[in-house]
Amino acid sequence: MQTVSVGIINVTGYIGAELARLLSQHPGVHLASITGRSAAGQKLGQFFPFLSHIPLVIESELGEVDFAFSALPHGAAAEIVAKALEREIKVVDLSADFRLKDATEYQRWYKITHPVPELLDEAVYGLPEINRQEISQARLVANPGCYSTGAILALAPAVKANLVTSNIIIDSKSGVSGAGRTLSLTTHFAEANENVSAYALEGHRHLPEIVQELQNLTQDFNPKVTFLPHLTPMTRGILSSCYAELAPRINPKRLKEEIKGIYQEFYQDDPFIQVTDSPPGTKQTWGSNFCLIYPTVDVEAGRLIVISCLDNLVKGGAGQAVQNFNLMMGFPEDMGLKMPAIYP
Amino acid sequence: MQTVSVGIINVTGYIGAELARLLSQHPGVHLASITGRSAAGQKLGQFFPFLSHIPLVIESELGEVDFAFSALPHGAAAEIVAKALEREIKVVDLSADFRLKDATEYQRWYKITHPVPELLDEAVYGLPEINRQEISQARLVANPGCYSTGAILALAPAVKANLVTSNIIIDSKSGVSGAGRTLSLTTHFAEANENVSAYALEGHRHLPEIVQELQNLTQDFNPKVTFLPHLTPMTRGILSSCYAELAPRINPKRLKEEIKGIYQEFYQDDPFIQVTDSPPGTKQTWGSNFCLIYPTVDVEAGRLIVISCLDNLVKGGAGQAVQNFNLMMGFPEDMGLKMPAIYP
Amino acid sequence: MQTVSVGIINVTGYIGAELARLLSQHPGVHLASITGRSAAGQKLGQFFPFLSHIPLVIESELGEVDFAFSALPHGAAAEIVAKALEREIKVVDLSADFRLKDATEYQRWYKITHPVPELLDEAVYGLPEINRQEISQARLVANPGCYSTGAILALAPAVKANLVTSNIIIDSKSGVSGAGRTLSLTTHFAEANENVSAYALEGHRHLPEIVQELQNLTQDFNPKVTFLPHLTPMTRGILSSCYAELAPRINPKRLKEEIKGIYQEFYQDDPFIQVTDSPPGTKQTWGSNFCLIYPTVDVEAGRLIVISCLDNLVKGGAGQAVQNFNLMMGFPEDMGLKMPAIYP
Amino acid sequence: MQTVSVGIINVTGYIGAELARLLSQHPGVHLASITGRSAAGQKLGQFFPFLSHIPLVIESELGEVDFAFSALPHGAAAEIVAKALEREIKVVDLSADFRLKDATEYQRWYKITHPVPELLDEAVYGLPEINRQEISQARLVANPGCYSTGAILALAPAVKANLVTSNIIIDSKSGVSGAGRTLSLTTHFAEANENVSAYALEGHRHLPEIVQELQNLTQDFNPKVTFLPHLTPMTRGILSSCYAELAPRINPKRLKEEIKGIYQEFYQDDPFIQVTDSPPGTKQTWGSNFCLIYPTVDVEAGRLIVISCLDNLVKGGAGQAVQNFNLMMGFPEDMGLKMPAIYP
Repeated sequence: MQTVSVGIINVTGYIGAELARLLSQHPGVHLASITGRSAAGQKLGQFFPFLSHIPLVIESELGEVDFAFSALPHGAAAEIVAKALEREIKVVDLSADFRLKDATEYQRWYKITHPVPELLDEAVYGLPEINRQEISQARLVANPGCYSTGAILALAPAVKANLVTSNIIIDSKSGVSGAGRTLSLTTHFAEANENVSAYALEGHRHLPEIVQELQNLTQDFNPKVTFLPHLTPMTRGILSSCYAELAPRINPKRLKEEIKGIYQEFYQDDPFIQVTDSPPGTKQTWGSNFCLIYPTVDVEAGRLIVISCLDNLVKGGAGQAVQNFNLMMGFPEDMGLKMPAIYP
Repeated sequence: MQTVSVGIINVTGYIGAELARLLSQHPGVHLASITGRSAAGQKLGQFFPFLSHIPLVIESELGEVDFAFSALPHGAAAEIVAKALEREIKVVDLSADFRLKDATEYQRWYKITHPVPELLDEAVYGLPEINRQEISQARLVANPGCYSTGAILALAPAVKANLVTSNIIIDSKSGVSGAGRTLSLTTHFAEANENVSAYALEGHRHLPEIVQELQNLTQDFNPKVTFLPHLTPMTRGILSSCYAELAPRINPKRLKEEIKGIYQEFYQDDPFIQVTDSPPGTKQTWGSNFCLIYPTVDVEAGRLIVISCLDNLVKGGAGQAVQNFNLMMGFPEDMGLKMPAIYP
Repeated sequence: MQTVSVGIINVTGYIGAELARLLSQHPGVHLASITGRSAAGQKLGQFFPFLSHIPLVIESELGEVDFAFSALPHGAAAEIVAKALEREIKVVDLSADFRLKDATEYQRWYKITHPVPELLDEAVYGLPEINRQEISQARLVANPGCYSTGAILALAPAVKANLVTSNIIIDSKSGVSGAGRTLSLTTHFAEANENVSAYALEGHRHLPEIVQELQNLTQDFNPKVTFLPHLTPMTRGILSSCYAELAPRINPKRLKEEIKGIYQEFYQDDPFIQVTDSPPGTKQTWGSNFCLIYPTVDVEAGRLIVISCLDNLVKGGAGQAVQNFNLMMGFPEDMGLKMPAIYP
Repeated sequence: MQTVSVGIINVTGYIGAELARLLSQHPGVHLASITGRSAAGQKLGQFFPFLSHIPLVIESELGEVDFAFSALPHGAAAEIVAKALEREIKVVDLSADFRLKDATEYQRWYKITHPVPELLDEAVYGLPEINRQEISQARLVANPGCYSTGAILALAPAVKANLVTSNIIIDSKSGVSGAGRTLSLTTHFAEANENVSAYALEGHRHLPEIVQELQNLTQDFNPKVTFLPHLTPMTRGILSSCYAELAPRINPKRLKEEIKGIYQEFYQDDPFIQVTDSPPGTKQTWGSNFCLIYPTVDVEAGRLIVISCLDNLVKGGAGQAVQNFNLMMGFPEDMGLKMPAIYP
């Protein structure tokens, strides 16, 4: 098989390491270059002992490759990505820099003027289950946020079918690796263990991309979304509990019987979505690229409830990026991603 | 000081053990009798080594006492409690048997005909911050459910002040000890660790008591509550994230500035409620009887958000029971309960 | 490629599930039959949702296969394995039934008369790094205990080279999944979380196989081993800290400089052993078939210290069983086992 | 009751916070002054919300007090403690600065010249079960290391009775809070969770104080101790597994029957030591000042095995400091320390 020469920009965080793990096992990939400013010159196996099977040295600049994954933080990514595109390298960017279509909205949430707003139009929001066609033709894909992936996938079938009003609440529970490898008191073991807390009550940055993508699903939809993320004492996983008021014309009892079928049909061609028979737990996705979705109806209150869960570093990050890569390069969508979850 | 002779019915579960721990340190209590059918005849210190400072033998029947805490499960409690009352023993019942005022509602949720419905009227719902006066005059107090305590305390000030409509969603995250000491696959370490999941999507039994108590707070209020509990990988703690639509006449921006003051005033005389300056974590209540509450407003979506957290075995169980005992016996409300949380 | 038709006897425990996960991704395997008495008739994906990609129904009896893995508990395994051998099925048995060469020793530790002692001579102790040659010619391989694997691999190079006396202490720390899927108070989340404890102080059943295999490494060696296992609050992983008195002729200081080289040479052809530069943690082996080993010398006390770690369900169980299968069938030793650890 | 005016130097770490928690509930203490350079000027309740019941502001210098606890790190403590003594303030120092009697040994292990070696003679090693008499007459007590407390208490009765040779191995497993509140990758949640590792293989600083105290117990005893600490994924707790070769004249079988009695007699007057009937877990000491000890004999190998466990922040730190304070001030030894463990 013809392999693609691939690079990882900023391999030294958790998302970068997860990309390296997945790409080193991908039969269509030749991992050729990895960068990481602070660790440049070190062997990858020194920096991350569990990756010592990858015989690469961390570089300060990206080498010759045909495809790049950027795991730089937002703000730092945009210009580096633009330069890669100029070198005719296709890119999946895992930061937030190309997710929002509106540069003003970007500035509002990220407090930076977008350095290359001219690329926003071209960039495709990389949620394959929603935008598969555009992704397969893109040069630049903006990989979704970890929370956004679970929330949009949970709500898309209902929004698309006009089952719900704009009254939407998304309550998400995340493992601590979502906060990355940078040290902070919040992620200090003795503080995070035996602790659940809510954060970002003034508004989390994944909210605008959730709203943007839900809006695109159906005409004249202006969702009034409250999104509240929580930190829970586990390493990996996001479970999102989504609540939406049923549209006035909907019969709650009948919808309760039909909702699973509606979701299954919506996701019938999607290899990584499983509509489940019972409420799933994050552990069922550990280390895998699956997103499990369980929709139901609170008949008395007239609300749709959808639970989704995924591994924030795989389907919520590096795995989805590889899925986008597969689409962009014409590989089977699930290539290198078929591993089941590791349980327990 | 005059001490009260106290008994614990069914000491062998986590709530029973927590009652024994707290009562053994309470200066107004003489712990005189503890029961537990399966363990009758054993010393308490054999059954629970951490309680070996309490020199009691587990009995099969309650001895001579003036006050009893029943930690029996629902269904098993009602008749035993009724017999204790006949012996002129005051009772705090920690089961659900006397929480609902309506025997039909009890039957609907618990699938049992209530054995002593004639006591339902007399029983007081034991949430001191709401029903202090009635509790202090009661013979029989029904200790609230662990979830109910956090949810009602989070919403009461807003409901009482008519700030919100009936559109209410309560998303709660609990530690695993809430499921008790009985073995199950759900609480098996290898299954519960590194796992977050939702459960009781068909309706949790704490919902009707939440609705009952919120309804009593203000006239003509028929809350349409969705309550969804989640299991998180920690031993103790419940964090509830409560969402309610603002009443039409309310200005979201102004309310955001005033909401903390409204909550502080509501709880100004309550020794165990802290309205916090920032979103609290469950860890800040570990081992203590405090409930921390953080109210705020999602201005764009027009929703009140309130976070509450507590230790499910203390303020959500045994601690609140002792608080009720203090009120019923005329002791200072915080007697034997002043210990701060243990952190980290 | 020619695939081998394979069965798993008793798929319903953690080791059985891990075998199914690994074998479903093994390019040389056609997984043809899985058994599990209590769950017979169910689809595997119903019983273990994370394995729903395997389209098999759990049976009560093993179907037509060329090779079987038995994940039955000790005592239950021996006769079933004997029957499979009669059907000319090669077997890796993951119980303890064929590990000890001496039927009297088996009876002493397992309190059962061995039902097929005539097979003990033929069975090969399946530690490939020690017995590769015999395994590759065997019909019946006894997969080592999880603790035994880590302990023997940590000590073998030193024992073989006569660096140590018979004074050996092995202190092992295991995750909770090692206790299996059967419910018990010890593995109840609220009891096991935030808890470290020692167990089996009267002697753990993995001790005799550790002694047997160390004895076989060098002549006239009668190790006086104390082995103490501990339970730690994690799901997977075993770390063993091994202490051995240096032989009188050994210079501690010089050995400290040479020990890493001695271990590297011993394991130079072993794809799953990594002699590390710094003390490893169990997390570096999570989900992988690697055993990491770090040897050093306490110069002042004159003791060898060796740390080893592995994933108890992979190299300590199902992964090692597949490694043995590969050797027995003439496949590359690391086939289907190349996945790195998942970190963090 | 007459109360003592007490100060805490450096309240901002975990040990400082634990001192504040315990002292705020101690009936003989008036907590008058707390210091913490970086946080000076803040209310304690801002810095540690769970301590908001203590109405003190963090200061930069110690105020007027009769007694001080220093929770400064080693190196920083010695001179500040010396100044407090000059002001006629009695001190319990929780650093390592006054634990070792030999200034050369201090320099060897801590890489600093001791600034006030003239105080080393006067300082008393604050392990009440061993040095109660000297502590009660001291002006300056050096609180033992967390590991040292558990190890010495586990071995003292056997060493004192000459039951063992100098061949001693101490394998300790600690929760992560022992590493303090300072951020590091080792204590980052995603790295420490689901991970067990050994550290300090080149020698841990608690080793010399363990050796010093064991040596003092009996004549002509030169223990050859290997001490290896491990990090386990829990917040609090240390379990030490101690192994010692039996003295030649000892009959292992007989000792096994007698060992519990020997330990019980040794600790008969010690309110915080419990010699247990079965191997204890760290969870049984959570939040309490107890040290649980279980001695037994490996008859075949001729070794004493002793398991001890404690809460590293209480009996291994702040609780033991308060116990020393009680002795120094003539209070009952267990004053303010009677709380049982919190379980589960």
